Amino acid sequence: MLTDYLIRTEPYYRPVGDEAALFAAAYAARLPMILKGPTGCGKTRFLEHMSWRLRRPLVTIACHEDMSAPDLVGRWLLDAGGTVWHDGPLTRAVRFGAICYLDEVVEARSDTLVAIHPLTDARRMLPLERSGEVVPAHPDFLLVVSYNPGYQALQKDLKESTKQRFGALAFTYPAPDLEAEIVAHEAGVDASCATRLVQVGAASRALVAEGLTEGASTRMLIHAGRLIAGGIGFAPACALAVATPLTDDPALRDALAAAIAAQVP
Amino acid sequence: MLTDYLIRTEPYYRPVGDEAALFAAAYAARLPMILKGPTGCGKTRFLEHMSWRLRRPLVTIACHEDMSAPDLVGRWLLDAGGTVWHDGPLTRAVRFGAICYLDEVVEARSDTLVAIHPLTDARRMLPLERSGEVVPAHPDFLLVVSYNPGYQALQKDLKESTKQRFGALAFTYPAPDLEAEIVAHEAGVDASCATRLVQVGAASRALVAEGLTEGASTRMLIHAGRLIAGGIGFAPACALAVATPLTDDPALRDALAAAIAAQVP
Amino acid sequence: MLTDYLIRTEPYYRPVGDEAALFAAAYAARLPMILKGPTGCGKTRFLEHMSWRLRRPLVTIACHEDMSAPDLVGRWLLDAGGTVWHDGPLTRAVRFGAICYLDEVVEARSDTLVAIHPLTDARRMLPLERSGEVVPAHPDFLLVVSYNPGYQALQKDLKESTKQRFGALAFTYPAPDLEAEIVAHEAGVDASCATRLVQVGAASRALVAEGLTEGASTRMLIHAGRLIAGGIGFAPACALAVATPLTDDPALRDALAAAIAAQVP
Amino acid sequence: MLTDYLIRTEPYYRPVGDEAALFAAAYAARLPMILKGPTGCGKTRFLEHMSWRLRRPLVTIACHEDMSAPDLVGRWLLDAGGTVWHDGPLTRAVRFGAICYLDEVVEARSDTLVAIHPLTDARRMLPLERSGEVVPAHPDFLLVVSYNPGYQALQKDLKESTKQRFGALAFTYPAPDLEAEIVAHEAGVDASCATRLVQVGAASRALVAEGLTEGASTRMLIHAGRLIAGGIGFAPACALAVATPLTDDPALRDALAAAIAAQVP
Amino acid sequence: MLTDYLIRTEPYYRPVGDEAALFAAAYAARLPMILKGPTGCGKTRFLEHMSWRLRRPLVTIACHEDMSAPDLVGRWLLDAGGTVWHDGPLTRAVRFGAICYLDEVVEARSDTLVAIHPLTDARRMLPLERSGEVVPAHPDFLLVVSYNPGYQALQKDLKESTKQRFGALAFTYPAPDLEAEIVAHEAGVDASCATRLVQVGAASRALVAEGLTEGASTRMLIHAGRLIAGGIGFAPACALAVATPLTDDPALRDALAAAIAAQVP
Amino acid sequence: MLTDYLIRTEPYYRPVGDEAALFAAAYAARLPMILKGPTGCGKTRFLEHMSWRLRRPLVTIACHEDMSAPDLVGRWLLDAGGTVWHDGPLTRAVRFGAICYLDEVVEARSDTLVAIHPLTDARRMLPLERSGEVVPAHPDFLLVVSYNPGYQALQKDLKESTKQRFGALAFTYPAPDLEAEIVAHEAGVDASCATRLVQVGAASRALVAEGLTEGASTRMLIHAGRLIAGGIGFAPACALAVATPLTDDPALRDALAAAIAAQVP
Repeated sequence: MLTDYLIRTEPYYRPVGDEAALFAAAYAARLPMILKGPTGCGKTRFLEHMSWRLRRPLVTIACHEDMSAPDLVGRWLLDAGGTVWHDGPLTRAVRFGAICYLDEVVEARSDTLVAIHPLTDARRMLPLERSGEVVPAHPDFLLVVSYNPGYQALQKDLKESTKQRFGALAFTYPAPDLEAEIVAHEAGVDASCATRLVQVGAASRALVAEGLTEGASTRMLIHAGRLIAGGIGFAPACALAVATPLTDDPALRDALAAAIAAQVP
Repeated sequence: MLTDYLIRTEPYYRPVGDEAALFAAAYAARLPMILKGPTGCGKTRFLEHMSWRLRRPLVTIACHEDMSAPDLVGRWLLDAGGTVWHDGPLTRAVRFGAICYLDEVVEARSDTLVAIHPLTDARRMLPLERSGEVVPAHPDFLLVVSYNPGYQALQKDLKESTKQRFGALAFTYPAPDLEAEIVAHEAGVDASCATRLVQVGAASRALVAEGLTEGASTRMLIHAGRLIAGGIGFAPACALAVATPLTDDPALRDALAAAIAAQVP
Repeated sequence: MLTDYLIRTEPYYRPVGDEAALFAAAYAARLPMILKGPTGCGKTRFLEHMSWRLRRPLVTIACHEDMSAPDLVGRWLLDAGGTVWHDGPLTRAVRFGAICYLDEVVEARSDTLVAIHPLTDARRMLPLERSGEVVPAHPDFLLVVSYNPGYQALQKDLKESTKQRFGALAFTYPAPDLEAEIVAHEAGVDASCATRLVQVGAASRALVAEGLTEGASTRMLIHAGRLIAGGIGFAPACALAVATPLTDDPALRDALAAAIAAQVP
Repeated sequence: MLTDYLIRTEPYYRPVGDEAALFAAAYAARLPMILKGPTGCGKTRFLEHMSWRLRRPLVTIACHEDMSAPDLVGRWLLDAGGTVWHDGPLTRAVRFGAICYLDEVVEARSDTLVAIHPLTDARRMLPLERSGEVVPAHPDFLLVVSYNPGYQALQKDLKESTKQRFGALAFTYPAPDLEAEIVAHEAGVDASCATRLVQVGAASRALVAEGLTEGASTRMLIHAGRLIAGGIGFAPACALAVATPLTDDPALRDALAAAIAAQVP
Repeated sequence: MLTDYLIRTEPYYRPVGDEAALFAAAYAARLPMILKGPTGCGKTRFLEHMSWRLRRPLVTIACHEDMSAPDLVGRWLLDAGGTVWHDGPLTRAVRFGAICYLDEVVEARSDTLVAIHPLTDARRMLPLERSGEVVPAHPDFLLVVSYNPGYQALQKDLKESTKQRFGALAFTYPAPDLEAEIVAHEAGVDASCATRLVQVGAASRALVAEGLTEGASTRMLIHAGRLIAGGIGFAPACALAVATPLTDDPALRDALAAAIAAQVP
Repeated sequence: MLTDYLIRTEPYYRPVGDEAALFAAAYAARLPMILKGPTGCGKTRFLEHMSWRLRRPLVTIACHEDMSAPDLVGRWLLDAGGTVWHDGPLTRAVRFGAICYLDEVVEARSDTLVAIHPLTDARRMLPLERSGEVVPAHPDFLLVVSYNPGYQALQKDLKESTKQRFGALAFTYPAPDLEAEIVAHEAGVDASCATRLVQVGAASRALVAEGLTEGASTRMLIHAGRLIAGGIGFAPACALAVATPLTDDPALRDALAAAIAAQVP
């Protein structure tokens, strides 16, 4: 069943530095990894790419504050012949050797975070407390988690005893040339349009100092590019895909509108 | 079953600008959308209209702080032959290609919001964590959410990692002439009466600066119009349908009463 | 089964103004209604009277902070042949065309309040999220809610997106002559006694300015009248039925005792 | 089954004033009653006495903050043939005509308090929301609640819409002669010993002004009397039964010890 | 089954005063008892001793803030033939006449505390609200509770209406000679070693004035004695069994280390 | 089944002092133990080593704030023939004589902590409140708990009545020579590299005074060593395994980077 999670075609990813080699070495040492960085800067795409390169299925779980350990690990369900154990997504990844990706891990409840401890030290096992089974991790299994140090870390953080079980790679927005190349490729717009979209993105990221929670992700710029490729004008596409979702603050909306207007061809 | 959700007769909608073209382009790009704006300004009606134009069923879910992911996604229920999985409304929309509308999405709990992440990026899939199934989104599926930046945003906001997955259109009250046309059409009153009702609405919206939480929606003006069309006088109809529901503050009640009295023919 | 909720004999109600005509017009327009006013001023009796006049069953639900949507809408119960759906009181009212009265609606949890949204706009339907059924409202169905703006509104209020779906009628205590007529009729005391009880009530309502949470309701005056009709003296009857329940504050107790003593024949 | 709750032998009760006649009149009018007063001053005994006089079973329910409406009203339980409804203690009292006594009612959660509303107005019925049944109150049914205005009312209070449904009787400690008579009768000590115990009680009640939460109840004095009747000395009996349970504050303990020593024969 | 809880060999207990006679008198009067005092000063051992002397089984229940009434009283469990009632430990004690000991009773939730009310007044019965049964207390049943006035009472306290149902005995650490005798007997060390351990205990208790939460219990001194009897030196035994568990504060650790060093032979 | 938990090959452990002899003496006296110390300083490895030496299975349970007593003790599960009791991991350890290790015990809820009380005094038994069984501890059973006094103790602490049931051993980071020996052995790097990694660790621990929550554990240094052994350079390995996981603070990141750069060969 885990073959559903195999990535069969190469996900587009433009490397920024030696992150691929470092991740491959961490995987070789089966060192659990934290991917850090702002929203939409490419952490998830990077991991999809590495999963494809390493030919391992990728099980992604978006964490949230109401997620509990049984959501990850599994639970008993009543069946015709009594209760039957159903593996959760983490247990399936552990059993069959996938890369398990806990996206935005700091959002999870404490029991979720603690359930991964025996998987991230020398034991490499998952005790299913409610079934009594102890699942040894498949040799190919690796745990990867992400978090966003920009605004999340102010309120929530991993416990030291969790954090020190992981290695970490820090991501940020790609450099302008690289980002324009990505936008052009993903949205199907020409280089000039992509460059102008990247400048809108850079302007929005500069507005964080003015109070914007977070700048536009590369993903937002791709959204705008796709609308442009679909026939919408540059300014309304950027308004719909970048400015209007990002903020309701009138001053910030005006600043974003000006930044967009400055790039209209 | 989703055909229950098909809108078979054209919902009355008077366009304000190019919102229909922009929404159609976003739908063509399958870009998830946020509809922003005050209570009762026409967001829901706009989406009903677009669903009719795009010939897609519309599944509407009113969000609230006690809604959890299983309310959206589905749950196990005990049946004669054991437990049976029942799709939630979001899963039905994903499976069969409806537009799924999460009304007042910021009211929902975090697990609800995170459950939609895999539907709003390149994956376009809904993992049913409790059943182990991964539902690929029907090509026609689109997620649309609404929120009210006026008073809600002060207390609650979408996470950045949610927000940056969406495009957005901002709505406000229609211009007076247009609003009068809408009120006349929907309530069955003449143009003069509709114009006077719209002036009551404008007066109430001006009172937000005096402490009123929110001004009268177009919907409230239509309510008053219907009572008038049913034989009730202008002043008692406006009191019942606009002033009395809006506030208990004596000063604001007096101000609304004066605004109504000024429009009595 | 809803015929259990039909009111077969005319409930005693003395109109104060044009509230009956206004309510009948709102019912004709199927405009959901809020009844506002202090405890025991006659909101519930008014609605019983209107239900009798309109010949519609009246399903009353007292709201509280632990009430959840399934309490209103229904739930799955395990039966010999598996799970069976049991309609809640709101669903029965929707299906069979009763007036459904949510008493003290602001006490309810948010999921309860949001569950009523699709019943209070053009859709007039109740989606049973847990069963997948969509129940169209019977043409005779109307939703009515009550709340007490005096002391409740300080802590809790309806959301704007809920409030603007309703019309509203404001109630207060009846004028003295009318209240004495009601007390005499309901308690079986003579006009002089009823007048003196009404003066006790008026004195208690004046004490709200001195710190009493709320003045005596008409209902309390009727309680005292019934004890008097049963042979208890005026002062001990008023102490038992009005002063002792209303407050434990010594100064307010003394003030109430003085107000009672002033009316002893 | 309710006959288990019939009180077959006359409970000892010494009347203080006309409380028995007033309660009997309230019962005749089926007016729900609040019994107010400090811990252990005789509220429960009074109600046992009245239940015996009125020959009605007495169902007592001690309220607490984790009690919910199903604890009172009943719930579905799974049985061999599916789910079966089990009446709660309130429902049994309503169905078969007992006096139902909610002791320390302000400790209960809001859903418990609201569940009693339809029992305390003209409807006199109990809607079992989870079963769909509407139980009309037996003609003999009466609801009685107690609360302690001394220290409880600071934190918790009944809602106005609950309070105004009840009549009320206020209790306090019996006068010294009467209390000594009660202690002598209940503990089996002579009049001199009972008088000295009552003086210890009075001294403890005076300490409330010094910071003691509440003075010794008549019940505590009876406890001390019983130990004395069993051969323990006056001082150690009062220490064990009165002073040590009442407080851990050294100054208050010393003051109580002095008050006890002053009464040692 | 309750015979499992009979104490068959005399528990070692050295009386401090007339506590055994007072407890026996309270038991004869079936007066529920509170045992007050600091951690590990002998409350539990005293009650084990009294249970042995009175030849009653002793059912001990450690209370905590997540304990609810069903944990004490019992619950329905699903069995092959439907739901079956399982008595909780309190119910078994009530039914068969044990002494039931609620250790650290103030930690329990309110429903636990209220569940014991009908057992601690003239009714001496336990209503099982969820099964409808009323269990009369066996004539030999007695309820005993403990609490620690030192640090617990600052945050939590019994309600007055609970407290006034009990008698109480106050315990403290034994006098030095007596404590040395106890330590020598229980740990198997000689009198000199026991005396030195008791001096370490006294020194630790003096540190409460310096900020230590609580001094070493007699139990801790016995732990140290046992390690010494097993061949460990005086200082490391006291460090392991007394100083290291008691505190992490460097200054207090130093003070404890000095107090231990002063007693090294 | 507990044989799954037997440690069959000697875990590598370098003793720091007489901790092994002290633990063995505590085990001989069956004195429950607390292991205190910072994250990753070797507490868990020490206990694995002792379990191997004592030839007892080791059941490790990572505590967290959502863990409840049934997670430890067991619960009823529905099976073909009705409900069946499933022992939790603590109960299995108690029944069959394992060492049970509650890692980070202060994270657990109060009911978890209280459930262990009867196992840690003379009773040495585990009452399964929900099944009615009393499980006597196997003679070989011992309870061991860990906690981190560095940053956890500020927010959470054990109750005195829990703490005084245990002996304790305090751990800290190994001395530099010893730590280098451990890193070289575990990571497979040479002595020079290990010494330089240990100096990075020491530099990170010195940064606690500058605001770092906790310094690098020995485990982190081993992670870096393994990457180096796998061909990654010293600086990127230390960045990935030590600096990037430890902090997001720019000043602390710079200080860590400088400390790493100073050790690059």
